[in-house]
Amino acid sequence: MSLLAFDLGGTKLATAIFNNEGKILFREITPLEKRKGHEVGKLITNRISTLSDVTEITGGEIKSIGISVPGIYYSKQGTVWAPNIQGWKEYPLLSEIQSVAGKIPVTIDSDRACYILGEVWKGNAQQCKDAIFLSVGTGIGAGILVNGNVLRGSNDIAGAIGWMGIQRPFDKKYIECGCLEYYTSGEGIAKMAKELLKEQKNYSGELKNKSIEEISSLTIFRLYEKKDEIAEAVIQLCIKYWGIAAANLVSLFNPEKIIFGGGVFGPAISLLPNIKEEATKWAQPISIQQVSFEASSLRNDAGVYGAAFLALSKLNS
Amino acid sequence: MSLLAFDLGGTKLATAIFNNEGKILFREITPLEKRKGHEVGKLITNRISTLSDVTEITGGEIKSIGISVPGIYYSKQGTVWAPNIQGWKEYPLLSEIQSVAGKIPVTIDSDRACYILGEVWKGNAQQCKDAIFLSVGTGIGAGILVNGNVLRGSNDIAGAIGWMGIQRPFDKKYIECGCLEYYTSGEGIAKMAKELLKEQKNYSGELKNKSIEEISSLTIFRLYEKKDEIAEAVIQLCIKYWGIAAANLVSLFNPEKIIFGGGVFGPAISLLPNIKEEATKWAQPISIQQVSFEASSLRNDAGVYGAAFLALSKLNS
Repeated sequence: MSLLAFDLGGTKLATAIFNNEGKILFREITPLEKRKGHEVGKLITNRISTLSDVTEITGGEIKSIGISVPGIYYSKQGTVWAPNIQGWKEYPLLSEIQSVAGKIPVTIDSDRACYILGEVWKGNAQQCKDAIFLSVGTGIGAGILVNGNVLRGSNDIAGAIGWMGIQRPFDKKYIECGCLEYYTSGEGIAKMAKELLKEQKNYSGELKNKSIEEISSLTIFRLYEKKDEIAEAVIQLCIKYWGIAAANLVSLFNPEKIIFGGGVFGPAISLLPNIKEEATKWAQPISIQQVSFEASSLRNDAGVYGAAFLALSKLNS
Repeated sequence: MSLLAFDLGGTKLATAIFNNEGKILFREITPLEKRKGHEVGKLITNRISTLSDVTEITGGEIKSIGISVPGIYYSKQGTVWAPNIQGWKEYPLLSEIQSVAGKIPVTIDSDRACYILGEVWKGNAQQCKDAIFLSVGTGIGAGILVNGNVLRGSNDIAGAIGWMGIQRPFDKKYIECGCLEYYTSGEGIAKMAKELLKEQKNYSGELKNKSIEEISSLTIFRLYEKKDEIAEAVIQLCIKYWGIAAANLVSLFNPEKIIFGGGVFGPAISLLPNIKEEATKWAQPISIQQVSFEASSLRNDAGVYGAAFLALSKLNS
């Protein structure tokens, strides 16, 4: 028997088939290209129809399907809100998938929920009952495990840590995406660098010769290694912001672990000791001694592992 | 049958006997006076021994005992850490109570856990599965209900919201009690007023003639009503701090309700609309529309109600 797992992102669909011990038997990546609305749903249902027929690569019949979606999964309605997929505001993904899955059970959850479940199943949060996956990339979200279950909140929107206020007073620029995300998402890091570049007239480093469009968070991390003064200033601020945000998670949740992942962690992983040091200043002093800050061990695969774990848990429930 | 509930505070012990519908049959308040260490434990065991014998006031045999403690209850060890009771660092309260309770089951939890459970049972959070009690008094703590259960964390220290960082950069003055508590506990409010008083040389209001020792948070709330300029400045800051803290709870937990209680809410209850307005700027925009900010309806009784609910839940489990 096998589990079919999808990790839908804003630009691509990752598909994997797992056995129930968590071994990947098959995987593929399909770019979304210009697909929107139902075309994206159809891409998934097509993969299901095709792969269900190919038992030689799937290690036997597919018994359960799990799907990670890039946004909010409204579990009561079976619908998805995904800001980076055009037309997915209340997209009826569950019914669409069920229409091709037949008797195979289908389970859907948000990417952040899947990330922490993936780490619990096969990554760095194994044996944890209280752990948090802090995902920092284009957006910022937290998958939060509370006593072994994913924190959903009253309407599936829990874990929206991109909106955490960590820099008073309020500024209109936070309206679009939230305060923490404004400063420390991938785009936020690039934006901070651009702002500093405009202010520091005496700066003569490598960024001077770049057009604004060329500056990305990856540029900043590369230049940070080279001790570029703007990159250093930006990264020092990020450490402060991530430190206070992580501290607030520690004081509220008293978790065993915070796992840092997403595209920015990535290169920011080397900063974990600095982030922990900053968090230690702010957090409940006993709780901060009990938590470890770790990198995601599944990296880009956290989503498919989480989706497979959704599928497996459904079978076991 | 009846339930025996204790709400232990830093200065007094509240005792109440409930029937299992939540009606209070008997109540008393005993000042701790200068009791410390085991004397406080003995005060509770004495009340148990005495009240167990007086079935005419207890409405029949006591079937279960619940205790709310002012600090952390370490559920694995059965011990209590209570900063305001001398000698209660790892105080073995469970075994001490069990030694007199005999076959009557004993359940203990932190005051913040009891506050939210009390509100769920008989207060403003009835029917809620995701709700938070924000208690602001001498200290600040949050009792957090997640999908019907109190959030404990990996070692029972969850909900330590007094340590929430909401005002960067870090300042040494936060070390003792945490950033949010530093500014907005009862003592913090008085402290802010005193600092402003020193700075504002041109101030000629009522506080001018008070010695520093006389200024309490109650003074500030009273003068705020009279539009005293220092009191207004302090309360405006409190609104900002409580607003950002509540917003962070909303973004992380997506709760149905936040219930405000403790000594400061109290007089600060009239500020709830302003706090909600401030929180709305910061919080995840869908979540903030789904939450209501309310006053505790049980007020000073939230602790005994919660303790009684602990006792009742134990019987039903």
